[in-house]
Amino acid sequence: MNDVIDDWLARFDTALSSGDANAVAELFEPGGYWRDLLAFTWNIHTAEGRPAIRDMLKACLAGTAPSGWHRTTDAEETEDGTAAWIAFRTAVATAEGRVTVRDGRAHILFTAMKDIVGHEEPVGHNRPMGIVHKADRHRETWSEARAKEQARIGREDQPEVLIVGGGQGGVALAARLKQFGVPALIVEKNPRIGDSWRNRYRSLVLHDPVWYDHLPYLPFPETWPVFCPKDKIGDWLEAYALIFELDAWTSTSCDSAQWDADAQRWTATVTKDGEEITLTPKQLVFCTGAYGPPNLPDFPGQSDYRGTLLHSSQYHEGAPFRGKRALVIGAGSSAHDVAVDLWEAGANVTMFQRRPSIVVRSKTLMELGFDIYSQDAADRGLTADRADMLAASTPYALFTAKQQALYKTIIARDADFYAKLDRAGFAYDFGEDDSGLMMRALRTASGYYIDVGASTLIAEGEIGVIGNDEIECLTPEGIRFASGREEQADVIVACTGYQSMNEAVAPIVSRAAADMVGPCWGLGSGIRGDPGPWLGELRNMWKPTAHEGLWFHGGNLALSRFYSRFVALQLKARQLGIPTPVYGRPAPCRVPEDA
Amino acid sequence: MNDVIDDWLARFDTALSSGDANAVAELFEPGGYWRDLLAFTWNIHTAEGRPAIRDMLKACLAGTAPSGWHRTTDAEETEDGTAAWIAFRTAVATAEGRVTVRDGRAHILFTAMKDIVGHEEPVGHNRPMGIVHKADRHRETWSEARAKEQARIGREDQPEVLIVGGGQGGVALAARLKQFGVPALIVEKNPRIGDSWRNRYRSLVLHDPVWYDHLPYLPFPETWPVFCPKDKIGDWLEAYALIFELDAWTSTSCDSAQWDADAQRWTATVTKDGEEITLTPKQLVFCTGAYGPPNLPDFPGQSDYRGTLLHSSQYHEGAPFRGKRALVIGAGSSAHDVAVDLWEAGANVTMFQRRPSIVVRSKTLMELGFDIYSQDAADRGLTADRADMLAASTPYALFTAKQQALYKTIIARDADFYAKLDRAGFAYDFGEDDSGLMMRALRTASGYYIDVGASTLIAEGEIGVIGNDEIECLTPEGIRFASGREEQADVIVACTGYQSMNEAVAPIVSRAAADMVGPCWGLGSGIRGDPGPWLGELRNMWKPTAHEGLWFHGGNLALSRFYSRFVALQLKARQLGIPTPVYGRPAPCRVPEDA
Repeated sequence: MNDVIDDWLARFDTALSSGDANAVAELFEPGGYWRDLLAFTWNIHTAEGRPAIRDMLKACLAGTAPSGWHRTTDAEETEDGTAAWIAFRTAVATAEGRVTVRDGRAHILFTAMKDIVGHEEPVGHNRPMGIVHKADRHRETWSEARAKEQARIGREDQPEVLIVGGGQGGVALAARLKQFGVPALIVEKNPRIGDSWRNRYRSLVLHDPVWYDHLPYLPFPETWPVFCPKDKIGDWLEAYALIFELDAWTSTSCDSAQWDADAQRWTATVTKDGEEITLTPKQLVFCTGAYGPPNLPDFPGQSDYRGTLLHSSQYHEGAPFRGKRALVIGAGSSAHDVAVDLWEAGANVTMFQRRPSIVVRSKTLMELGFDIYSQDAADRGLTADRADMLAASTPYALFTAKQQALYKTIIARDADFYAKLDRAGFAYDFGEDDSGLMMRALRTASGYYIDVGASTLIAEGEIGVIGNDEIECLTPEGIRFASGREEQADVIVACTGYQSMNEAVAPIVSRAAADMVGPCWGLGSGIRGDPGPWLGELRNMWKPTAHEGLWFHGGNLALSRFYSRFVALQLKARQLGIPTPVYGRPAPCRVPEDA
Repeated sequence: MNDVIDDWLARFDTALSSGDANAVAELFEPGGYWRDLLAFTWNIHTAEGRPAIRDMLKACLAGTAPSGWHRTTDAEETEDGTAAWIAFRTAVATAEGRVTVRDGRAHILFTAMKDIVGHEEPVGHNRPMGIVHKADRHRETWSEARAKEQARIGREDQPEVLIVGGGQGGVALAARLKQFGVPALIVEKNPRIGDSWRNRYRSLVLHDPVWYDHLPYLPFPETWPVFCPKDKIGDWLEAYALIFELDAWTSTSCDSAQWDADAQRWTATVTKDGEEITLTPKQLVFCTGAYGPPNLPDFPGQSDYRGTLLHSSQYHEGAPFRGKRALVIGAGSSAHDVAVDLWEAGANVTMFQRRPSIVVRSKTLMELGFDIYSQDAADRGLTADRADMLAASTPYALFTAKQQALYKTIIARDADFYAKLDRAGFAYDFGEDDSGLMMRALRTASGYYIDVGASTLIAEGEIGVIGNDEIECLTPEGIRFASGREEQADVIVACTGYQSMNEAVAPIVSRAAADMVGPCWGLGSGIRGDPGPWLGELRNMWKPTAHEGLWFHGGNLALSRFYSRFVALQLKARQLGIPTPVYGRPAPCRVPEDA
């Protein structure tokens, strides 16, 4: 088996060295895939099929100058072909990847930058010594150096990178940048790091299991609960920021940021504990969550409604609504969690479902969907970092098909569960193409629920469901539907989701900038909320946008962990002044009118 | 090779099942060793030779009821014989260990309790779920439960265990007890957890490398420096206490504790922010450091001295002594560190060496002495927890011989280094029996230095050395020696070490109790500071003492990590009321006069 890989690598190396993009492309299946994270493209890019691979190489091969291709593990047979982990280097970096070969041709090639040579991530064998074992009359101790750094950043010393938001995205990125020696400053509007979790509704608990949720460098302890409560995540983020010596200004808002194209830097104004401070970072990264601002309710007759109307982001706990009639609008994750929270507080709860949701039982998803992120995997020595690389080695186009196969299994296995939801009048589907929850999350970041208890309440009629209808207007007592149905409610919680991340750019940079970069997330899959054409990668996440110096980083804990490394590598290269020609940089989404 | 182990285990199992202690002892070499951590003895005990093994079994075998002996790894050839990891269970616990067989007989058997059945440590597969995936109208969230627990402990709820001291010993033990469900309260006199490190002298950095220093459950991140600065350790301990939800009262002193033999509990008085609070724990654990109170200077003529006289524990930084004449008394770790700190601050430093020290270069010790605690070991998958078990599987009697062999290598390798120390007039040895630094640390916890820079300054004459003399008295200007030599000094730092840990008991419990339990540390090796007879184990550490309900836990980070598990198991068993007959419990060291 190793021969299959070694032979292919030898031919590949020869073709690359000849500089002949056609010859290289011939080594792929006609419909083969090449997913690249920075190594060739300084972008996150998947070339699908020989013509796309050829075009990519024509643009990138000479500058990349790849060499030293070799296998780093024994080859293994997979459902996609013979596969092995590989390593190589480029003109400026070490890189690794994975190749899957069928009948002598590459079905999938995955390449990822590892370290910029001379600026390796200081982990393991590269970790700092902590002390020079030599007496030194000019010794500055760790705490003295750290105190100086903290006092100077944002004042005497300008950060290279300004990070807006101190949730998991912000702290993961700041931790990477600290290791890479890129001065970065987090501004977080809340008083403490972790408050973005603490401020959510009372009963919130992570829906993903612990093995999927580790942050960079410091895995959760082996005692950590499988599903972590929100406040405990908040405390973890706060401790993490302390441990990794992150520079973070809390109780600080980012009020404005203007790009100076001549100086190639931002002028940003922040307010820290009432003091206005101007910063001039080279890079501005929005780590404001997986979403933008909330889609606040805007129903006809809204001002007539006499009850309590809240967006899910404003909902904190159910206690005030004990014995009251509650109506939850929506059927995604927040809607389910809020409905349970209200029910637990003793409210009489009805959910108005606007369209079908994807619902999967947590236990099922853990057993079938998280096999590489599990205690069994950890016991086999598969770390989250290695599992991330494995997950990243499958192009999104192929991931869709794999998820469709998974959902066939899930639907059969949990037939009883779905039959009960049916009987309760709850509308579910598995996505437009039956590719399930993860694909919907990637495509639209909405419309799904991992069942941790709400579905049982719905199946048992404890939470009522209204579907097949539309809201006509709010009335003084509740909601009137298009069918003529009227529902009285003392409280209405609109779990109507959030706008895209780029909407966070508008109030800080400008409306024009937000429009120019366009929405985040989505693959161009051509479904509602994710219009085509097919892109093969997520929009705007963790890679250059159409706006110079403007980046988005975030997602759940797992995505924040993995992609923080690649965002940090891109920012480090720019700090160093290494040429970073971006292949396939997105065009402005809409040319701003004042441009 | 596996057969060698399997055959022996089968014979061993048969002999144990017959209840015939003689037959079991015959399966050991005449001078064979059996080291047991709780599994048979509810003690930390090494039986050396067949008669000792026989005696131990006669007392312990029936109650232990061991069964299910099996090999858990492939056997390997070692310098001591054919060895393998094993597992078994007792009447109440699962246990593991290691056996080394030569010519069909056990050379070494190591047995260690793992988990009390039904009360397994909640790690890995046993970790908590964090949430019941079911709606629940009586749900208490994590933060609500935690807030209630914090508010009640020491007030409405009495801790089972009172831990005096919140350094690495206290937090490691409290973290274990939290997992085992044993309510424990730390009282720490300083305002913040970690201050016991922060308060030490400015330039202090750990002399042990990071791979040896992990605390339970949460290894340091892979970015952590090899030698950690003191303030960073302080911050880590503080974050650790937060992450593991430890109940710790800071700015709190433990003023007194009286044992009530009838009620089988303590009455302890603590002062928390000026408020006096009475606690009634069942167990009292001193985690006040590896040492007791400082040996404060008490020299003739001391009151005449007009300069600054400090014990090393009072020394903070050298800055005030720039350009001054400094005399450091002692040649152990503190003396070396303080001498360098003074030299770095620009003082003129002389060290008065009272007796030879053991000095080893840090680099040498890391390469030769810490092979199982290293990045290479970690890369091979050898965790600190597994390395601890490997280290613990060698009885102290055999460890001495292994260390003698190691020091032969070290002396040859670093001959130039020692020749330079010789020429500078620095007196060194390698212990009374050439067993080196680690053995001296275990025997007397003093008189050694891992060179991180001071020895170079001494070799180069930058730090002067006075030896072969004795202090006659202090004079107004400095010190007069027995030889008639007079040394002027603006500052004298007495690095004269510390008393034994049991001296911390005297002011809190009573002089009589401190005397009854006697000193901690030392193996009975018959050298200065560690009088015989030979004990085979350390005095009073991590195991029952001569005083009911009184325990000592601590040592460096590594010992605090490993033994915290065994202290916690002993305390958990007592909380559960499981019979814990202690084999070889120490007799009162000196019967208190008022008994």
